[in-house]
Amino acid sequence: MLAPARTRVKVGGESAVGLVVPLENERSGASSSIEALQQLVAEDLAAVDGVIVSRMDSRVALIPELAGYIVAAGGKRIRPMLTVAGAKICGYAGDRHVKLAACVEFIHTATLLHDDVVDESDLRRGNAAAHAVWGNAASVLVGDFLFSRAFQLMVEDGSLRILDILSRASAIIAEGEVWQLATTNNPETSEDSYLEVITAKTAALFAAACRIGAVLAERPRPEEEALESYGRNLGVAFQLVDDALDYSAHQASFGKTVGDDFREGKMTLPILLAYRRGSDAEREFWRRTLERGEQSDSDLETACGILGRRGALEDTVARARHYGDIARDALGIFGEGEPKRAMMEVVDFCINRAH
Amino acid sequence: MLAPARTRVKVGGESAVGLVVPLENERSGASSSIEALQQLVAEDLAAVDGVIVSRMDSRVALIPELAGYIVAAGGKRIRPMLTVAGAKICGYAGDRHVKLAACVEFIHTATLLHDDVVDESDLRRGNAAAHAVWGNAASVLVGDFLFSRAFQLMVEDGSLRILDILSRASAIIAEGEVWQLATTNNPETSEDSYLEVITAKTAALFAAACRIGAVLAERPRPEEEALESYGRNLGVAFQLVDDALDYSAHQASFGKTVGDDFREGKMTLPILLAYRRGSDAEREFWRRTLERGEQSDSDLETACGILGRRGALEDTVARARHYGDIARDALGIFGEGEPKRAMMEVVDFCINRAH
Repeated sequence: MLAPARTRVKVGGESAVGLVVPLENERSGASSSIEALQQLVAEDLAAVDGVIVSRMDSRVALIPELAGYIVAAGGKRIRPMLTVAGAKICGYAGDRHVKLAACVEFIHTATLLHDDVVDESDLRRGNAAAHAVWGNAASVLVGDFLFSRAFQLMVEDGSLRILDILSRASAIIAEGEVWQLATTNNPETSEDSYLEVITAKTAALFAAACRIGAVLAERPRPEEEALESYGRNLGVAFQLVDDALDYSAHQASFGKTVGDDFREGKMTLPILLAYRRGSDAEREFWRRTLERGEQSDSDLETACGILGRRGALEDTVARARHYGDIARDALGIFGEGEPKRAMMEVVDFCINRAH
Repeated sequence: MLAPARTRVKVGGESAVGLVVPLENERSGASSSIEALQQLVAEDLAAVDGVIVSRMDSRVALIPELAGYIVAAGGKRIRPMLTVAGAKICGYAGDRHVKLAACVEFIHTATLLHDDVVDESDLRRGNAAAHAVWGNAASVLVGDFLFSRAFQLMVEDGSLRILDILSRASAIIAEGEVWQLATTNNPETSEDSYLEVITAKTAALFAAACRIGAVLAERPRPEEEALESYGRNLGVAFQLVDDALDYSAHQASFGKTVGDDFREGKMTLPILLAYRRGSDAEREFWRRTLERGEQSDSDLETACGILGRRGALEDTVARARHYGDIARDALGIFGEGEPKRAMMEVVDFCINRAH
């Protein structure tokens, strides 16, 4: 395996620092594109977008304005795509998954809006954070509106099982976020504890989004649980790669910002690994920059240097690959076909975006 | 009717200014106590408190800590009391109302936590606001947790009709709060528009809390709608009196703070009335102190003086009495008995706390 190379790239006129983490695609021949999934769900996803737009509408103009900004910035719609894919892999032939996929995206959007307030960062992935444009109050309240609207959509659908799955996931997400708050700024947070946090705050919604498909298709419990496991493990892998990408030059080369987590003092897995493996001087560096939040201009470059020397990014991605493997194997009980192939590929895509 | 008297009272060692608004109890002989309601629901409310304490628990210690602070500060539990009373007036004999009353209180607590962040006030009714003690992030996230937990309780109960009523109410509350945000600081807000806001942000939950009782008892639609109307009109009356009390010496004499709304620049009905009826100089005073937020020490006293001269507090309470009358008459279709008497009295109590 190649050693990570430190590099300097231009981002929006400013020079940024990051690591290029070379990754082997350990299952040779496996495609790592999201295209198969996008093709599989394209038609349904257009319908989902229709529901999103119509149901976030309100005579209070600020609501569609702000919600639209976040939904548009939300990117790939991976969570609603998973609901659609989960329905397809179970052979579901109805149309209830469209409304429920919109509902999953509303829950995600609501948590994004609230995270914005919690993080207090003015930029999120290179865009102005909603609270920096419209203020904290609007972000909190529009988030509440979308969350309530999500429950209205579920009630319209009428399945108490699905209401149970998604209300439980919502409580777990909030609990995970509060737990993260309590551990923020502590570089001695254990890896186990960190995994619990991301399992709650990220993976719970991935898991619920996937599981819904099997419930809709009235498939037996093992298939529900397989989709739940696929979603949960994919979600953990997705978050770990996200954590690594925040220090990645590859990310920067796509015009995305690098160092958001660093500036916010977030104790993500790369930091926790580097802290454990670090010298006294390095540990003092992490405590100063992240725990006490005393940062100067060159600190991000220094941070990337330490992360590289300690193998923290590569190993974070290696951990992600482990969860990705579990996700892929969880699909073993489903028959071959387009849905399964697309869902397999999206695992590789999530991990290999670190390339 | 007596003219309001300006008075100066001591609040926590500091001198405060407010108006004493003399109110006639226009239905002679009517008791205006909350005691009959408290007696009626005492046993069930103890069970509700048990559910609240057990279901806001979490292995994340910050959640019960913060939620407990707000629930304890929440006061009289009027909303869950209404759910219990609504069930009783409909002759409901089961125990589902206990869990649902807790769920109503969770929704209320979640909105209180989020309001705290939105208002940015460090004090709320004389207590430190939760966000001032634990920070905005904790208030937002614990609010989200309680909101999710409320939906879990509803799912456990298993009635899609009740889920529909409460998810709809939640969306209306959030929509009303965003609408208020958009009209904040505008003294030319119309009375109609203000009524729409408080109908959404306060009265919708009162209405839903009451309506649940008829649904549980499987009563015909007119009884559901009567309870909905009772709750909605009581909620509007309650909020209007609250708005008046914020400038009331009576309030101050109970050791409560006066002037929270003034300091936050809130355009409540007393202000909107005084602005409409005011001289150019008075309008400039309101614009400076509330719209532009430029306040000096003596401004609250001046504000109370203007509100008194313009009859703004008395007339706000007179408006409240109108909605209280509608609430009482809505109960006309129910037979006489303890529940009806208690629910009648609580209307008078809500209005006459302005005494």
